[in-house]
Parts: sequence; structure tokens; C-alpha cells
Amino acid sequence: MQVQTNQSLSVDCAVFGFDGETLKVLLIERPAYNALDRLKLPGSMILENETLPEAAYRVLEEATGLRQRDLYLRQMEIFSDPKRVEGDELAWIRQRHNIHTERVVTVGYYALLKLNGRLIDYTRSKGAQWVEVDRIQRLAMDHKAILTAGLGYLCREMQQSPVAFELLPRKFTIRALQRLFEAVLGIEIDNRNFRKKMLSSGFLQPTGEKEQGVAHKPAEYYTFDRNAYRKALKAKLRMGFIDNWRY
Amino acid sequence: MQVQTNQSLSVDCAVFGFDGETLKVLLIERPAYNALDRLKLPGSMILENETLPEAAYRVLEEATGLRQRDLYLRQMEIFSDPKRVEGDELAWIRQRHNIHTERVVTVGYYALLKLNGRLIDYTRSKGAQWVEVDRIQRLAMDHKAILTAGLGYLCREMQQSPVAFELLPRKFTIRALQRLFEAVLGIEIDNRNFRKKMLSSGFLQPTGEKEQGVAHKPAEYYTFDRNAYRKALKAKLRMGFIDNWRY
Repeated sequence: MQVQTNQSLSVDCAVFGFDGETLKVLLIERPAYNALDRLKLPGSMILENETLPEAAYRVLEEATGLRQRDLYLRQMEIFSDPKRVEGDELAWIRQRHNIHTERVVTVGYYALLKLNGRLIDYTRSKGAQWVEVDRIQRLAMDHKAILTAGLGYLCREMQQSPVAFELLPRKFTIRALQRLFEAVLGIEIDNRNFRKKMLSSGFLQPTGEKEQGVAHKPAEYYTFDRNAYRKALKAKLRMGFIDNWRY
Repeated sequence: MQVQTNQSLSVDCAVFGFDGETLKVLLIERPAYNALDRLKLPGSMILENETLPEAAYRVLEEATGLRQRDLYLRQMEIFSDPKRVEGDELAWIRQRHNIHTERVVTVGYYALLKLNGRLIDYTRSKGAQWVEVDRIQRLAMDHKAILTAGLGYLCREMQQSPVAFELLPRKFTIRALQRLFEAVLGIEIDNRNFRKKMLSSGFLQPTGEKEQGVAHKPAEYYTFDRNAYRKALKAKLRMGFIDNWRY
């Protein structure tokens, strides 16, 4: 075993969106090459003058047109198995970038954004597509494993902080919020308990507006009150450190 | 800007220990080279057949003799500034490893261990030393920034989970626990409140043994009851997700 210099570093992003019913992830179709899987996560080698987060934001802007301020992006784990890219996949990378790399280590990121018609049109124009997470069987290289890790992070984070609202439009119904939790956590949640819990949290602000043109009884729209949340959090942290231990 | 292949990946570890009074970090002295700083964090390039965590555990075992099961090791951030290693520092790396790398990206890890006489002897025999964190002015390359990041992680984690006990001997006094919190958080804590809070948590188990040969009134030794902690945590998580949001 020895030190190697002909290795490369890349970023790969699991970008999640929610359409009101199902959780979706952004996939890129790459040109056919041998019998390799066509669909992959958006990603890139890092360029010589950029840091890893800069590379990740660049990849996301290329795929979605969104800037840093409009995205929730977090680094997750690093995929450094020496055999994660080999054989035809390594040949594809060498050919695509015209480099003689022997090994590619990739840093996984996950991103959350607000899915809407304009965004879907944009990504489609870039050759990308939004695919329901539950329907994905295989992806290029180890991208299925990266997606699974991203889902794990999202699942944990949604139970620890209000990231759910990064995936919802500014105004949303409690039903949409519940559907999002159900889609991500893979569980069924009792309607009445969920509604009661969310309304009693003090973090949801009624807008007075209701759904229009729906077959069922129109539901009210709410917004997330980030200031109320921050205040409550501050008060909780003041209670003292041992009460906040959680893992 | 273009894709590069002559780049290298390394790991650098901020290894913390607590001697009952102050927080210390493990530093390695490297051979003199030009006017470069001599002291650095333990670290290594990744070898061709190992993953990043494997490289980090190898570095720690080389420096401390401790195996994975005796260490608390966590990955923290990645340091990918294209200019983090250049000039004489890059020349030192090229000479030391006999490689022609243009860029070194490093993954920062932080580790916690139980400092004792045997361990201090071992690290000394390996040319490493335990230095009080507050006295460190400069380190090689960007290792001061990596150390600072490690301290930040430790600081946050100690307020969120019982990692403090990774730094204490199995049996400890409440005073030692308090001194550890004070050293890491950089604050003074009220003795009586701290004692009351810790004892009422239900996580500390009295051993019935007391300090011996001390000038002051001998204090009782306690152990951390990990099972009681896990049970309490489980009950807390059952209370429902929104109550657990914290950032």
C-alpha cells in the first residue's frame, strides 16, 4: 500500500423535492456508454480553484438555476471505498474528463428545495428529471448508496429540526406537511394527533387563506413562523446542557 | 479552471485528552524543514487500499497504540481551500512522500480518549506530546484552524450528548466532570447548581469509593450509567418529533 497522487475528488448531490404527495430526487441522464446505468445524481469533479462546497453549489446551479441563498445544502458523508469506481465506470470518467485518475473519492451532499412548475421546466431543459424516490431501483456507480445515505440524513434531520419547511411552499396546508413527514419517514401518521401537535407548537401561523377549487373541504394555508421557533429554541437551550443531551 | 488528477487526500486528527484540570491535544514534532512550524496534528495521506476512516484509525493507532474500540473518533469538516498547502509546505509534502501532488485536501477528524500515565508514556515514545489547548499559538499548515474546528465540534457535542465521559476515567468525581465542562466551554460553572443538576439527572451512579490522600475533604467517585441514559433518551424521543427539534 502506498501514497497515490493520480486520484480525484468529486461531489455528488442528492437533491430532494416534494410535490405535495411524494418525495422526489433529481437525476441526470448521461450519454450511453457500454452497458452502464444511464441515470446518476448531479455531480462533478472539483475544479482546481474551487473548494468542495463551491463545487457542490456550482453543480446545483447548473442543474436547477438556483443560487446558494435559495438552496438548503449540507455535506453528508464521504464515499472513499477504494473500489467504489472501477472497470467501465472508471473508464467512463477517464474518457469524459480526459484524465488518468486511478481512484475517485466523492463527497456526498444533500439538498432540499421548493419544487414548482418553473423549476421542473428548468431542470427538464437541462436534461434532468425528478423521479419518485421509492421507484428508483438502480443508479450509476454507487449513487444508489449515496441517495440512501441522503435519505437517512433527511429522515434524521426532519425529526431534529424544522427542515421540512425547506421542501414546502411558503404557504402550505397541514395535510401537505403531514404527507411530507409520511413520505420521508415511511410511516402513517394519525391526522388528528398530528394536527393538534403542529397547531399547539406555536410555530405555525394561519394565513386566513384557504385552498381553492378542491373537491374536499378547503383546508387553511399556514406559514412557518421561524422567529417563534428560534425563540422557543433559545429558551430550551437556556434550561441547561444536560437536559439537551439526545444521543 | 480545470479538473486535476495530481491531487492528494489526507486525514488530520485533533485528539483530545483531559488531565483532570486542563484540556490537551496530541501534537507530533516533525523534522526541521526550512522555517516551517515544527508541531502538527497527527495525520497521513490515505493509502491506495484504505478508506478515509481506516486512514484515521491507522494514524491514531500509530500515535497512541489504541485500537478502534478504545477511541471515540468522528469525522468533522473537510478542508478543501485550494491554497491550504502551498510553497514550502507543499515542497515538504512532496519531499516527504516523494510525490508530485499539486493540492492536498484533508478531512478533519476529532478523537476523544482517556488520558493516563501509560498512554502519556506511549505517545512520548512515539515522539508525540500532549499540549494544553489554550497555550497553542501556531501549528504547521492550517492545523491551527483544524484544531479550532475540532474544539468547536467538541464544545457543541458536549452540550448535546454525554461525550464528556469519553474523556474521563471510568470513576470520576463530580468536580472533575465540572472542570472538564469548564475547560471545554471556557466558562465558570456554579458548583452547587452543577452538582445538583448532575445528581438529579439519574445518569450518575455512586460507587461508594472516595478520593484518597487529598488535602481537601475527599470527594466520592461516580460512574456514568449509560443504560439509564439510553432509557431516558428513548422515552424522550417517544414524546414525538416536534418536541425534539433543536436547531
